[in-house]
Amino acid sequence: MIDYSRFLSSTGRQLAESAIRRMGTVVAGATDLVSFAPGYPAPELFPWDELRDISATLLNGSDSDTLQYGPTRGYAPLLDAIVGLSAERGISATREQLLITSGSQQGIDLIARVLVSPGDVVLVELPTFTGGIAAFRNAQAHLVGVPQDASGISIDALDAACARERTTGRTVKLLYVIPNFQNPTGALLTLDRRRQLVEWAERRDVLIVEDDPYGSLYFEDAASAAETRPLRAEDPEGRVLYLSTFSKTLAPGFRVGWMMAPPSLIERFETAKQSTDLTSGILDQHVVYEAVRRGVVHALAPQLRALYARKRDVMEQAIRAHMSGRLSWASPKGGFFVWATLPRGCSDQALLERAIAHGVVFVVGSAFFVDGSGHDTIRLSFSAPSIERIDEGVRRLAAALTELQ
Amino acid sequence: MIDYSRFLSSTGRQLAESAIRRMGTVVAGATDLVSFAPGYPAPELFPWDELRDISATLLNGSDSDTLQYGPTRGYAPLLDAIVGLSAERGISATREQLLITSGSQQGIDLIARVLVSPGDVVLVELPTFTGGIAAFRNAQAHLVGVPQDASGISIDALDAACARERTTGRTVKLLYVIPNFQNPTGALLTLDRRRQLVEWAERRDVLIVEDDPYGSLYFEDAASAAETRPLRAEDPEGRVLYLSTFSKTLAPGFRVGWMMAPPSLIERFETAKQSTDLTSGILDQHVVYEAVRRGVVHALAPQLRALYARKRDVMEQAIRAHMSGRLSWASPKGGFFVWATLPRGCSDQALLERAIAHGVVFVVGSAFFVDGSGHDTIRLSFSAPSIERIDEGVRRLAAALTELQ
Repeated sequence: MIDYSRFLSSTGRQLAESAIRRMGTVVAGATDLVSFAPGYPAPELFPWDELRDISATLLNGSDSDTLQYGPTRGYAPLLDAIVGLSAERGISATREQLLITSGSQQGIDLIARVLVSPGDVVLVELPTFTGGIAAFRNAQAHLVGVPQDASGISIDALDAACARERTTGRTVKLLYVIPNFQNPTGALLTLDRRRQLVEWAERRDVLIVEDDPYGSLYFEDAASAAETRPLRAEDPEGRVLYLSTFSKTLAPGFRVGWMMAPPSLIERFETAKQSTDLTSGILDQHVVYEAVRRGVVHALAPQLRALYARKRDVMEQAIRAHMSGRLSWASPKGGFFVWATLPRGCSDQALLERAIAHGVVFVVGSAFFVDGSGHDTIRLSFSAPSIERIDEGVRRLAAALTELQ
Repeated sequence: MIDYSRFLSSTGRQLAESAIRRMGTVVAGATDLVSFAPGYPAPELFPWDELRDISATLLNGSDSDTLQYGPTRGYAPLLDAIVGLSAERGISATREQLLITSGSQQGIDLIARVLVSPGDVVLVELPTFTGGIAAFRNAQAHLVGVPQDASGISIDALDAACARERTTGRTVKLLYVIPNFQNPTGALLTLDRRRQLVEWAERRDVLIVEDDPYGSLYFEDAASAAETRPLRAEDPEGRVLYLSTFSKTLAPGFRVGWMMAPPSLIERFETAKQSTDLTSGILDQHVVYEAVRRGVVHALAPQLRALYARKRDVMEQAIRAHMSGRLSWASPKGGFFVWATLPRGCSDQALLERAIAHGVVFVVGSAFFVDGSGHDTIRLSFSAPSIERIDEGVRRLAAALTELQ
């Protein structure tokens, strides 16, 4: 019997597993489980008819490029379409600043590989997206968490953390942030804070990785498009590396995201992507391009905003009805998540174990903290379950919490 | 103006670009170019009708899983289908030994990340696939080339190289080989040599990475299925990590490949994949599964063998007709490539420059050698161009060669 652990690299020995993905495995194996765990989009609004029609056209055999290997940079018309979508959000970009990625996750991974040497500091929000944590950890980054308040990441705490790390001789290269409806907190970084953040990056000579999957999913009763204006839209020096995806605005099954960065860096990311997966799925890229060109993506956006706002309402009403006064949370103004603090003395992990027994799952809050804290928090995704299931899931969660208390 | 090179990691500074991918960019920009460069499959046999029908069914809205995020490990029915396909090739495997990858390239990349620490030796064939070279280089492997003869990699030279590297104190973990219709040489490793190779790996405590994209594309006039039996089929100790793909047997646009390894390593590769791209395209995986289930993949195989054998014939006839006695090569028994040696005094790079001016491209042989040699060789892919274009391309190549001589 071979002991394969002898063959692992230093990276291979330290691989960080995503708590969310692990939860996905639990969910896949269970029946009648209500899942508030993964941030899956609502299947109710997948545009089946349009996608079926698009696929039939693309697979009519008139253009063999739809099934062939494609350029690593991405399908050129899709790159141009993203230039157009970006302009609508205030971002001026050219095709030379773009790279199609296999979801935003690949964008984070490419940044980690191309920019982070072992021991380099990556500053992150406390808490932050587990997929970001895993990608940076796998590049052996030294992750340093920065507290957030209701307006988003604290600039003072950020500056102090940067200074402290530099004093110890470490290289601080990157700040990873999710300004719009942050994962997991749902927080919306204020416009003031955004401006300060870019100024801070210039002053401290740091690059910002702006991860923006949820920007167009603001809730019209609580936020406006103007409030989601990306950092990248006000970035005179070129400090911001911007990531986004069609996973939340069309469907995640296509694995089509993009990154935007200065051309000299995009060339590096492209070269790194060559040896990673050669190219993202080319048929998927054609489908997504057609969905943009035919207006499917545009037409969906207001429907998605309305549906997710309604699901948020249902979840909040259910929490008030079934767990009155026991969970505390800030009402999200967009995105997929209710981020809740547990009653004193309750731990996220203990609640999860009971919750599974009651047929409901969520992600433990501590998974999102790089400093080992957050054991009194949980992330509840309201995006994927149906309205009826949301209420049912919260009932089950309430029962689990009662049992725990 | 920011100097972004300051922000690069050690990996980012040393990124190796794929010569083949670079050639793809040249091709994309040109009109009326005959391309013998990338190993693209023949578009004539893409099964449009079947894929259109499969897509229409999958997108009928009855199963939202087809557009949702999927499990990192892969779509379970597809994993089971691959178990079945493997059994037909003599490989006994279970689902626990499988991971769906975004093409074989991702399999190589995951192996490089999870198993190769900077400075570790990876033994490779001389010459070998540029995508393998790039992935291992980007993990900062020390690549050591081992000569091949007409029967494939030389066991004596392999053993000597391994011993030599170990004497210098380096860790030798992996051997990367392409036993079937090797890229770029087209060589078929003999069955005798295969057995010796696995025994050697056991004796020297090395793992073998077996890359097998072309195994089912043997030419019936020159080789049999039995001669393509994977190393993995005779691997009592579990020394062989096996990679394959649907890119050559169905279509590359789907980016669906797989890796097979001992369960404890597959778990590591799966964790690494989580932070790389979360999951491979789920709709693509459903389409590929249906193409296997409905017999599309099986029905295609003999047609592909016949078409590629015919294209090989056309290319060889054209070389004899237009470049009689000037190129030397061994007739390939399968796969996509004619690997040719140039007349004395001609360099691959000089010929390529003239060839581009004449409207034909290929990949310089030296790109496949990790030791800097091979400047008298070229790789000509006959897979993608039509029969007519193959003849035209060889005419142009002959004109370029005449000019060079």
